[in-house]
Order: sequence, then structure tokens, then C-alpha cells
Amino acid sequence: MTPKPLVRKANFYETDQMGIIHHSNYIRWFEEARVDFMEQIGYGFEKAVQMGIDNALTGLSCEYKSMVRFGDVVEIQAVITELKNARMSVSYEVRDLKTGVLCATGKTSHCFIDSKKMRPVSLKKAIPELYALFESTIL
Amino acid sequence: MTPKPLVRKANFYETDQMGIIHHSNYIRWFEEARVDFMEQIGYGFEKAVQMGIDNALTGLSCEYKSMVRFGDVVEIQAVITELKNARMSVSYEVRDLKTGVLCATGKTSHCFIDSKKMRPVSLKKAIPELYALFESTIL
Amino acid sequence: MTPKPLVRKANFYETDQMGIIHHSNYIRWFEEARVDFMEQIGYGFEKAVQMGIDNALTGLSCEYKSMVRFGDVVEIQAVITELKNARMSVSYEVRDLKTGVLCATGKTSHCFIDSKKMRPVSLKKAIPELYALFESTIL
Amino acid sequence: MTPKPLVRKANFYETDQMGIIHHSNYIRWFEEARVDFMEQIGYGFEKAVQMGIDNALTGLSCEYKSMVRFGDVVEIQAVITELKNARMSVSYEVRDLKTGVLCATGKTSHCFIDSKKMRPVSLKKAIPELYALFESTIL
Repeated sequence: MTPKPLVRKANFYETDQMGIIHHSNYIRWFEEARVDFMEQIGYGFEKAVQMGIDNALTGLSCEYKSMVRFGDVVEIQAVITELKNARMSVSYEVRDLKTGVLCATGKTSHCFIDSKKMRPVSLKKAIPELYALFESTIL
Repeated sequence: MTPKPLVRKANFYETDQMGIIHHSNYIRWFEEARVDFMEQIGYGFEKAVQMGIDNALTGLSCEYKSMVRFGDVVEIQAVITELKNARMSVSYEVRDLKTGVLCATGKTSHCFIDSKKMRPVSLKKAIPELYALFESTIL
Repeated sequence: MTPKPLVRKANFYETDQMGIIHHSNYIRWFEEARVDFMEQIGYGFEKAVQMGIDNALTGLSCEYKSMVRFGDVVEIQAVITELKNARMSVSYEVRDLKTGVLCATGKTSHCFIDSKKMRPVSLKKAIPELYALFESTIL
Repeated sequence: MTPKPLVRKANFYETDQMGIIHHSNYIRWFEEARVDFMEQIGYGFEKAVQMGIDNALTGLSCEYKSMVRFGDVVEIQAVITELKNARMSVSYEVRDLKTGVLCATGKTSHCFIDSKKMRPVSLKKAIPELYALFESTIL
């Protein structure tokens, strides 16, 4: 299945003095969409953490296409675009819910970590169930 | 000794669309001033944490007197106003460094916690050295 | 009518190294609840801004009762507790949605401002419609 | 001249429950370094804004190399890597001040905007003095 986009309202405290949502907040919205994505596939982020698997963010990028303002409602679609034993990439699209206008696109790269040993681990071996769920979302 | 105020510049990302520093950031500045205060008295916050003593914030208040804008330099004076075995109150003054204008006053209340047992603990017994240092700053 | 509480999930990026939601975020949640409150009474915050009326936050307080963790769902009830021509006070209760446990209580004080002249203004005169709506929520 | 790196301490409120600085904060540190860069070359960000020139962030990326923790002191070096009439790219290196270890690298892309007309403008024509200052920092 493909998870639905997260629908989310832009907050006043996320604006800056240019009168738009500060660019750093989109990075946090990506995280919200990732967490929501995992809930939708039925395997909450917390559950992975309890299994002793952390998820280290190794890189990110964001392209800003159209400004978002306080009160705008956006939908953030997260899609797994790459999945390897110990690594994963997720891509994002932020759209204005009303107009459908593309506001931003982004990507995050992740490495799965054994939270005790603090070193990379194969998700496929550590939590095959979660790995399979991730795989099932890739078209 | 009485620690000096923390001198700190207001960041662009701390502004909101009213063109001023968003009120929630002052609460974070208070924390910066507390951490700086502990360094100045020679007992870093991290050190207390390593000793197994956490510091739970139980309450706070802030009165906003004059707006702070991006680029303004403020000084934040933290002063311990109350110290009991397991509790402490800290008061704050935020002033514009250039003009001396009072921008905000605030207060935070804290409870010392045994981070293993997760329950209140007497700082006086747990880390008498730190308790004495705190006491020495009270005029 | 009395607006319903805002239901809101605690985000990962709102946690701190103590493993709980950082206290400064509650102040932002209060703002979310205020904004939601105004939408529920049918007069969006943006609309007041367009009418040239800003809302300056003059003070706030928060008492922390029970820790909130990543993934917890909270409901934030905002209630107008005081309404004068140019001033308003709002009180808040943050509760765990599942358990009903009280996590925090708070209060914010506001002054209505003419955004052109940048000075206090009587909301009752400036936007009687909004003043009446606010009044109607007070029990 | 080449501006010096910004020296900056990691704050407690910037940590997350993994016990490290949350990745979104590095994006804000980049902004702090950009602002500091402009002050060092003698042309503050505010001054450009007063001249009616805004600076729209069109894209960013960050690679995370080594975790930063609360209390760590980092230096953030910003360098202009590309300068065109209406566009600029800035690269960043975040290093641990004590150890010199590389914590992160990043890049931001910017477009100069006429803040009245809200459309791209040639910085070279709009503020030749600032354009020349930027140019002088490129090795």
C-alpha cells in the first residue's frame, strides 16, 4: 500500500519576518510525514526504537518552489525511493491542499543503527517485518 | 560571586511575521542563561547530569515589556531567587545591550530529580558542592 | 459556544535529551490552541490581522504537571478567562487524550494593537463582532 | 577577505531524545553563519533588507558526518561558492572547535528579490557595493 500524505496546517510560530514559513520548518515537516508514514504502514517509529533500532539521518535536501504562509494547509507526501539493508532514502512533496500547488520537494537519507552498539545494522536482519513493510510501499 | 549576564544576538529564524522575536524564544533564552550561569560558577549542567541529578522544570512565567527584533543584541541576567533542598527558582531580566531597555522579565521553577529513580531528591545531600555554589550566588 | 480542545500529537523534533517534550514547546501549543479557538468561533486570526488589529502577547505562564513524550496525543483546551476593551487573558489545559491525565496548565495575556499606529486599541470599538464572539465563549 | 567561522555552542533545547542535536537545527546554524558572514564583510543583512532587497532561499542540503551533543562548541564556516547577478550559493562546514572533527557540510542556494515587486533582481545592479563585497570573498 502507499501511505496517504500528511495534512498539516502552517503555524504562526513557524513564520519569519518575511511573512512566510521559515525554511527550516519544512525539514521538521518531513519528519512529521515520516512518522505518520510509519504509523500508516502499521509499524510506529517508537516500536522500532523499542526493538533497539535507531534511525540516523545522514543527509537531506530541500528545494523551495512556492512560499507557504501562516494558516495555509499543506499535504506532505513521503515516499521511500531507495531501500538497502542498512540504508533508506525518502522523498517528499509538499503541496498546498487547496490549490494543489507544489511548495517544496525534498529528500532524506537514513542509516539504521543498533542503538546499543551504536553502529550500522541491517534492518532486513534486525526487523525483517519492518523491512518487508517498507519494501511493500515501493512501487 | 554573581554570574554576569549572557550576551546573545536575536536570530532571523527567531522572528515571526509581526517582525519581532516570537515570544516562545525567550523561554529558550532563559535556558541558555541558566546553562551559562552554571558554567560561570564552575559547575556545568552536564556535570550534574553525569552525577545522576536531573533538573525538572516545574513552572515558568514571562512578562514582555519591549519588543526584540532580528539583529538586536540582548543581555540575559539569571539570578537564583530561591533555593531549597529539592527546589530552586531562577529569575531573569532580558535587556537591550545597547540601550539598556528592559525587554522582558521571567521566572522558572525547578525540582531536582534522581535520574535513575526518577523522583525528587535533595540537592543539598546529592551534590552538596553544587548546592553551596548555588547558595553563594544568592545575595 | 465553547470551542473544543485542539487535539495534537507530540513530535519527535519537540523532544529533548531527557526524552520528554521540551518545555518551550508547550508555549507554542498554546498558540496553536488559540488559533484553533478563533477558527472554531468563526473568526480566523488572519482576519483580525487584515482588519489591522494585531494581538500582542504581554505575558504568559505555564505549570508542568506530567511529562509528555514523543507520540503522545494531547488535547489543549483554551478558554478566555478575562476580556476587557483592549486586553484579554486565555487559560489552557493540556491533557493526555488517552488517559485524561493533566500534563500542564497555562495562561497568556494579550493586548489588542492597532497595527498601523502600533498602539493599544479597544477591540470592542475596532471589531465589535469579534469582541462579541469572544464574549459569547465566556461562561 | 575571508570571514572567520562563527563559533557557537550547542544548546540543550536543540537536543532530541536520541541525545544529540536535532538535524533541523544545523539549517538554522547555517543561517546564523550567513548573517555573521555579512556582518564580517561590513554589510549587515538588515541593511540589504532596508535597501529593499530580500534574499529568498531556493534550496539547501546538509550531510551529517558526526553527531553534535549539548555543550559542544562548534565552528561554522560559510563560504560563497557561486555568485551570479540574481543568484548565490553558500557552502558550510560545521566542525567541533576542540577536536576539529567535521560534523556536517552543507549548501544553500539563494535568489535576490526586489521586496516591493517580489521578483528576482540583479544584486549587481541593485546593490553593486554588496555584490563587490561578496565577490571579494571568493578565492
